[in-house]
Amino acid sequence: MSVLTNPRSERVKAVRALGRRAARQRSGRFVADGPQSVREALRFAPHTVLDLYVDGSVADRHRDLVELARTAQLHVHECDPAVMSALVDTQHPQGIVAVCRPVDVPVAEALAADGGFVVVLAQVRDPGNAGTVIRSADAAGARAVLLSDASVDLYNPKVVRSTAGSLWHLPIALGGAVDELIAACHARGRRVFAADGAGTTLLHDADLTGPHAWLMGNEAWGLDAETRELTDDVVRVPIHGHAESLNLALAATVCMYASADRATSAD
Amino acid sequence: MSVLTNPRSERVKAVRALGRRAARQRSGRFVADGPQSVREALRFAPHTVLDLYVDGSVADRHRDLVELARTAQLHVHECDPAVMSALVDTQHPQGIVAVCRPVDVPVAEALAADGGFVVVLAQVRDPGNAGTVIRSADAAGARAVLLSDASVDLYNPKVVRSTAGSLWHLPIALGGAVDELIAACHARGRRVFAADGAGTTLLHDADLTGPHAWLMGNEAWGLDAETRELTDDVVRVPIHGHAESLNLALAATVCMYASADRATSAD
Repeated sequence: MSVLTNPRSERVKAVRALGRRAARQRSGRFVADGPQSVREALRFAPHTVLDLYVDGSVADRHRDLVELARTAQLHVHECDPAVMSALVDTQHPQGIVAVCRPVDVPVAEALAADGGFVVVLAQVRDPGNAGTVIRSADAAGARAVLLSDASVDLYNPKVVRSTAGSLWHLPIALGGAVDELIAACHARGRRVFAADGAGTTLLHDADLTGPHAWLMGNEAWGLDAETRELTDDVVRVPIHGHAESLNLALAATVCMYASADRATSAD
Repeated sequence: MSVLTNPRSERVKAVRALGRRAARQRSGRFVADGPQSVREALRFAPHTVLDLYVDGSVADRHRDLVELARTAQLHVHECDPAVMSALVDTQHPQGIVAVCRPVDVPVAEALAADGGFVVVLAQVRDPGNAGTVIRSADAAGARAVLLSDASVDLYNPKVVRSTAGSLWHLPIALGGAVDELIAACHARGRRVFAADGAGTTLLHDADLTGPHAWLMGNEAWGLDAETRELTDDVVRVPIHGHAESLNLALAATVCMYASADRATSAD
């Protein structure tokens, strides 16, 4: 295996460019950076992994992943530390990077599974929030995540990292106006609950027994009144102390775990 | 009111130095940066606010806070934008900064309130995690937060910002070894529940009816077996999908909201 040593090569520049949305959209590629992301991509969607780059000086640490990749008949490029640093724009490169094809699915496919709950993110803008909600949706057992249009790019490196591998674990659909996504949930027999501080129904009292969708608003402006009107109920996470609110990821997680807990109780 | 215009003055340097732990410890001061922190400090602990700095060019935006400060007979220093930028090390200064005295209380005082639940953070290191847990402890109605020794400094600017004002809302105690904090909770009649992925009791089945404390481990290494032995039960937040875990702040929030919900059900 030849070792890549030129951090200024066209190949390296092309990978680094994937840090920018325009380059991702043009090429239909994105980057999974670090062993956790790479492992979950290889385990759950090996056919979407196109190239794997491993820093030879730390390759021992990632031997299991290289094995996984070879089993999947993928190209494994060994590179030196300078090339690894040039591939991704992170302060602490972790020695392994994969170039991947998108994993999002059409809305209809994300909503194909019956029962349980899904989560719809309306115009979420912060990469950390979006990624963290995907991670906790996975943990809480959501059937799918839907991101409306005007949301942060799912393949932004910070989103990918914040999902902690959950990006590859459950169906995620992108795009569509919020009202279209609400209608799609209704058409599949799901009640839609807006999670909003303006809600009059407390989370504890929400009827989470049937198939449903949680609709989470934007971190700054929440959900507008028109959108809330389209939902079946507006549900509020109670604030017991003097805090003004919970942030988006925390509120979403509390709501989703209430759904999961209700499902457990019903067993 | 004279306007401060010299970003290199000793006064300005002394405030900026409070971004560093050593300077905070030497002076017994820290900085509340931005309207949310300043407002909560003025509302909940005005006697701990020593100086207020307002950027005159945006003073209109903060008129209510300046009024609050004057009612509390505080010094309000008007400054120009260059001085505001020099006061704090943030990319987007929000035009208002307060120099404050610490608000933490002794462990015994934090544990003085009976009933409900408290949260104990064992060697939490990430500023965002610590601040976010304090914010959600406030929202979930915790009686107090205890940070063990070897934790991140509560007055680190990133911690302060992440609390979103909750720093001033509930009793917070600092220091003490984890086993001492567990013993202190026991002595006050609280059962202590370790939240840990190694737990055999599912959150849904934990007995959260009496007074209790949630013990959260470090983000990277969790809680060691010896510490778990000291607790009354080790409780696991169920992971339903393929996610490896929830992060510290999410897990803590789910546990604390389970406590709050159980209290609601018992009403």
